Amino acid sequence: MAKGQPAYIPDDGLTTRQRRNRPLVMVNTGDGKGKSTSAFGLALRSWNQGWSVAVFQFVKSAKWRLGEQTAMETLAELHEADGTGGPIEWHKMGSGWSWSRKASTEEDHAAQALDGWREIQRRLAAEQHRLYVLDEMTYPIEWGWIDIDEVVETLANRPGNQHVMITGRRAHPKLIEAADLVTEMKKVKHPMDVGQKGQRGIEW
Amino acid sequence: MAKGQPAYIPDDGLTTRQRRNRPLVMVNTGDGKGKSTSAFGLALRSWNQGWSVAVFQFVKSAKWRLGEQTAMETLAELHEADGTGGPIEWHKMGSGWSWSRKASTEEDHAAQALDGWREIQRRLAAEQHRLYVLDEMTYPIEWGWIDIDEVVETLANRPGNQHVMITGRRAHPKLIEAADLVTEMKKVKHPMDVGQKGQRGIEW
Repeated sequence: MAKGQPAYIPDDGLTTRQRRNRPLVMVNTGDGKGKSTSAFGLALRSWNQGWSVAVFQFVKSAKWRLGEQTAMETLAELHEADGTGGPIEWHKMGSGWSWSRKASTEEDHAAQALDGWREIQRRLAAEQHRLYVLDEMTYPIEWGWIDIDEVVETLANRPGNQHVMITGRRAHPKLIEAADLVTEMKKVKHPMDVGQKGQRGIEW
Repeated sequence: MAKGQPAYIPDDGLTTRQRRNRPLVMVNTGDGKGKSTSAFGLALRSWNQGWSVAVFQFVKSAKWRLGEQTAMETLAELHEADGTGGPIEWHKMGSGWSWSRKASTEEDHAAQALDGWREIQRRLAAEQHRLYVLDEMTYPIEWGWIDIDEVVETLANRPGNQHVMITGRRAHPKLIEAADLVTEMKKVKHPMDVGQKGQRGIEW
């Protein structure tokens, strides 16, 4: 989709190419399936461009390794081996972020989430990656662990050409307001409704 | 998502494991972004399970190679090289399906679409793959090129353990009725609305 003509041409002094290549803040929200899956699909496209990609998983259990992580890490190794592209980093909050040596307990999830966000802020300031997937970061925002105004300000002032994709239900209205592209994944029908639990290859 | 308890336990004589592992018909529809992207993200999970996967792209131009195709084919080669998993096939209708030698003109898109569907029927009957991604097949169905009743019947009677994911806008009500999992990708906001065209790494 979205390969056609835009609805109108803004009077912003930019060329079509300049306007086209503006970095995006994207949000996948809603109660349906596909929010994270399509964010990781987007990371595939970035890999193909040779971009440096970082995924931060804020909620899913560290014990629960997604097929996507294995696949993306495998692809990243190929790029590293032949020098044709940037790395793909995959960080999970589950039992403490990988860059942190702090012991983790149930109680300090809020502190951990904030640690993750601080790291993302540092990387954005340093223009470390071309795509950031902030998977399920809507929840620590919802719970007040990460301040929404700070998120909006950091995104608005990020330098260079860095795309950011944030996923999770109930995206904050200020986040939606700040985003360039927002999709709501709406559940029409789910096997769980008729008693079928998630299965491997489909849910993970 | 969907890692919790189902809403109720059906009285269908199946164990939880049997019920869990029933093959699914999935549909990603709606006017928002992420229908195909999340279908390809799903294919990543299948790759990680070592499954045989076939993608059939019914509409996107053959000239327009998606980053996902390169990534998936790269991953598939790794599995083939070390024998740890099945192949990933990627077929595009654009200028004639890869298995067909027929010359293609603008006028025979309907015949081509039907050819694609016949091939899918043959493969389903032969239990050739574990996951089929029928990308944008809602359109040839909408245009009457592929008969919806035949699709529903073929899906209902497919043997073995074969998952099918169909993407595209305006999924036929009979397809939604027949599916186990349906997600509507709803556009909340798109850069195109403010005059920004699609860019590489994001749209392809």
